[in-house]
Amino acid sequence: MTTYSPDVASCLEADIVFRDAVVLDGDRERAEICDVAVSKGRISSILPKGHGTKIRAKEECLCESKKALLPGFVNAHTHVAMTLLRGLGEEAPLKDWLEKHIWPVEGKLKSNHIRIGTQLGIIEMISAGVTCFGDMYFHMDEVANAALEIGVRCGLCQGLIGKDPLFSLKLKEGIKLYDNWHGKDEMITVQLGPHAPYTVSPKKLARIAEIARGLHAGIHTHWLETEWERNYIINELKQDPIGLLYETGLANVASLVLAHGVWFPADRLSEIAKDNITIVHNPSSNMKLGSGFAPLSQMIQKRVNVALGSDGAASNNRLDPWLEMRTASLIQKGLHKDPTLVKSKEAIQIATVNGYKALGFSKAGLIREDWKADFILVDLDKPHYVGWDLKNLAGFIVFAGTSRDVWGTVVNGKWVYRNGEYTTVDYERVIHDSKVARKNLLNN
Amino acid sequence: MTTYSPDVASCLEADIVFRDAVVLDGDRERAEICDVAVSKGRISSILPKGHGTKIRAKEECLCESKKALLPGFVNAHTHVAMTLLRGLGEEAPLKDWLEKHIWPVEGKLKSNHIRIGTQLGIIEMISAGVTCFGDMYFHMDEVANAALEIGVRCGLCQGLIGKDPLFSLKLKEGIKLYDNWHGKDEMITVQLGPHAPYTVSPKKLARIAEIARGLHAGIHTHWLETEWERNYIINELKQDPIGLLYETGLANVASLVLAHGVWFPADRLSEIAKDNITIVHNPSSNMKLGSGFAPLSQMIQKRVNVALGSDGAASNNRLDPWLEMRTASLIQKGLHKDPTLVKSKEAIQIATVNGYKALGFSKAGLIREDWKADFILVDLDKPHYVGWDLKNLAGFIVFAGTSRDVWGTVVNGKWVYRNGEYTTVDYERVIHDSKVARKNLLNN
Repeated sequence: MTTYSPDVASCLEADIVFRDAVVLDGDRERAEICDVAVSKGRISSILPKGHGTKIRAKEECLCESKKALLPGFVNAHTHVAMTLLRGLGEEAPLKDWLEKHIWPVEGKLKSNHIRIGTQLGIIEMISAGVTCFGDMYFHMDEVANAALEIGVRCGLCQGLIGKDPLFSLKLKEGIKLYDNWHGKDEMITVQLGPHAPYTVSPKKLARIAEIARGLHAGIHTHWLETEWERNYIINELKQDPIGLLYETGLANVASLVLAHGVWFPADRLSEIAKDNITIVHNPSSNMKLGSGFAPLSQMIQKRVNVALGSDGAASNNRLDPWLEMRTASLIQKGLHKDPTLVKSKEAIQIATVNGYKALGFSKAGLIREDWKADFILVDLDKPHYVGWDLKNLAGFIVFAGTSRDVWGTVVNGKWVYRNGEYTTVDYERVIHDSKVARKNLLNN
Repeated sequence: MTTYSPDVASCLEADIVFRDAVVLDGDRERAEICDVAVSKGRISSILPKGHGTKIRAKEECLCESKKALLPGFVNAHTHVAMTLLRGLGEEAPLKDWLEKHIWPVEGKLKSNHIRIGTQLGIIEMISAGVTCFGDMYFHMDEVANAALEIGVRCGLCQGLIGKDPLFSLKLKEGIKLYDNWHGKDEMITVQLGPHAPYTVSPKKLARIAEIARGLHAGIHTHWLETEWERNYIINELKQDPIGLLYETGLANVASLVLAHGVWFPADRLSEIAKDNITIVHNPSSNMKLGSGFAPLSQMIQKRVNVALGSDGAASNNRLDPWLEMRTASLIQKGLHKDPTLVKSKEAIQIATVNGYKALGFSKAGLIREDWKADFILVDLDKPHYVGWDLKNLAGFIVFAGTSRDVWGTVVNGKWVYRNGEYTTVDYERVIHDSKVARKNLLNN
């Protein structure tokens, strides 16, 4: 899948050129050694080894066939600022965890906590190769500002709880978030964020869906995370959990992101295999909270757009796409006793291009000319990569790779992380501020 | 659980002292800041913060309450030299994987491959904090030499296949391995290594067990890895899979290490909850090969000594105890829909002290005075550790931690890995030799 343009090779100018990079993405059967040029936030040319010598760039990055260039990872469902809540109520039963540990602290979160917690989470994510994230939380202007300042892409929504006395106000805030930020510099998309079918009534879900259709906005919500939730929909709401998506109009918005889907009936997955619907699989969080194993292999088989998420750091406790990608594949192999399920190419797809699609970013998540220059450099010169070749690289990345292999992270054609350094944020300041914020939060 | 000796604090000499280290192990309810001194391969004293100023040591390591000092991890079941086979036949069904990809290459492995592959694996392991490993393979003198040279502890056995025309010779080699290496410098133990109940007949298992009893040697074998294997024992051998351990005498050797145990009936686990029997849980490998999920939480509940392993790199594809520890805990929470299962303290136990016990090393795997000085330093000054405290550190280590956090690895009181450097092995040479060996192996 080379996009080879020999006729223009004599006159190419670029911001950065990556020489002899080992290019791989979720659409390639094998890796290929190429010179990849970046201009104005786009991948401006991809020329096979030996053909890129005439690219003139302001900056050269010599990959020497020892660094892989892959699309950046999309952490498609998270609550980034929850980095400040990491480790709270560890190992408590779910109800206690929420009621005694998480909610009381969340109630104290001010906008400055959200700003600092988001910065902390972004630092962790970019060093692990995340170039885009999908976030549902509150004080979302802070999240938008932090993401833009550091320079990562994101899809944001204001979380909405039906019983919240401030529901109408929050809904307005969610709409304002859309008005102010959606499409901003091609870096941010905004969705509306009804929390879940057990916290927002079908009537309110329908209202939110109607507003979303009016705005041409997407929706990001939790759906069928736990068995309890499925039973609630069936027994209390007297609804069918898939039917409810159509009944409320959620299924008919521009894009619908359903986080978790652990309890989606496998035989009904084809009903949501539509261009505008994504399930975000969060394997670590689903295990850690005792929710179960989502039917990921069936989702893939039924051609549902599946993306990958970490969920919040408080229920994971990492924001690490490598862990999620590896875990997602391994669980299905173990669960179905079939080592051929969720192949490495598919794992890379769900961790990259599918996430961009979920969050409404076009031309992103594959290494192609004119696509967004969001990618990572992976250092293959490490003990656990001995034996990689162009044909087997995907397997090495998914099963042998870890976040410690990320050498560099590029978003929108700009470095955000390079050889251990954060290029757009003051690391020491964020760590310091985070420690202060955490203490302040727990002691007051 | 402080071992506090104020009366001797005025006259302590040591090889190395670790000042203000955050001490944690599988036996402590909470971490504690201590000065830890090491002499002649042992932990010579542990003094609480402020009491260790009079320790005089040849070397000081200032941990500044920002580095955790934990027992080293034990990778209790692996085939280290399979690092050279990593990624072969990825995603093939198990039978094809073995018959078409692994066995043909294993048939070509010469002693120099074993030496190089073992060095490569040890490099990966020590950078991830492994201080001791349990290995079953062949050309085991090479493994012993590599381990001793680099300075890691290990329990070794020569793999034995009943149908091998050279079975008797290999058995003699296994006994010779015991005679030559068992107890060597307190760094190596040797077990006898019948491969599995489907490759070694009950008669031969009984013969090996008898020899082991005569030598006072332990046995390391695979047991109940797959459903097929369980059915083979029941239907072909007409044996009960647990009864067979007693029938053959395996259960009565000095120490019995059973790798996998995926298909151990949960209601029969109490029958093997004995001091001399260990199950080594290999969660990644068991998923990757489609074997299933072992009943780990029931093993812990029934007080079976459970240790943790990576299995060979060809079926994992990492040799990373952090991944196995985290995965082991998460799977049980997800499988049983109970977030309280396999708590972080238990996860640390199975990854450390239980493994030493399995491989026959006494006084190892906890941070205690007079115990073996096998431990790691973990850098807590990282974004994902913001919020750690003495009470919650175990959770941070197990769920938020990764192998990239290992700052240093000490075995037998000596550094083998320190701040990114390998202190006892020529890293570049091993990587180079490994690449050559891999190519040579696959192309001939």
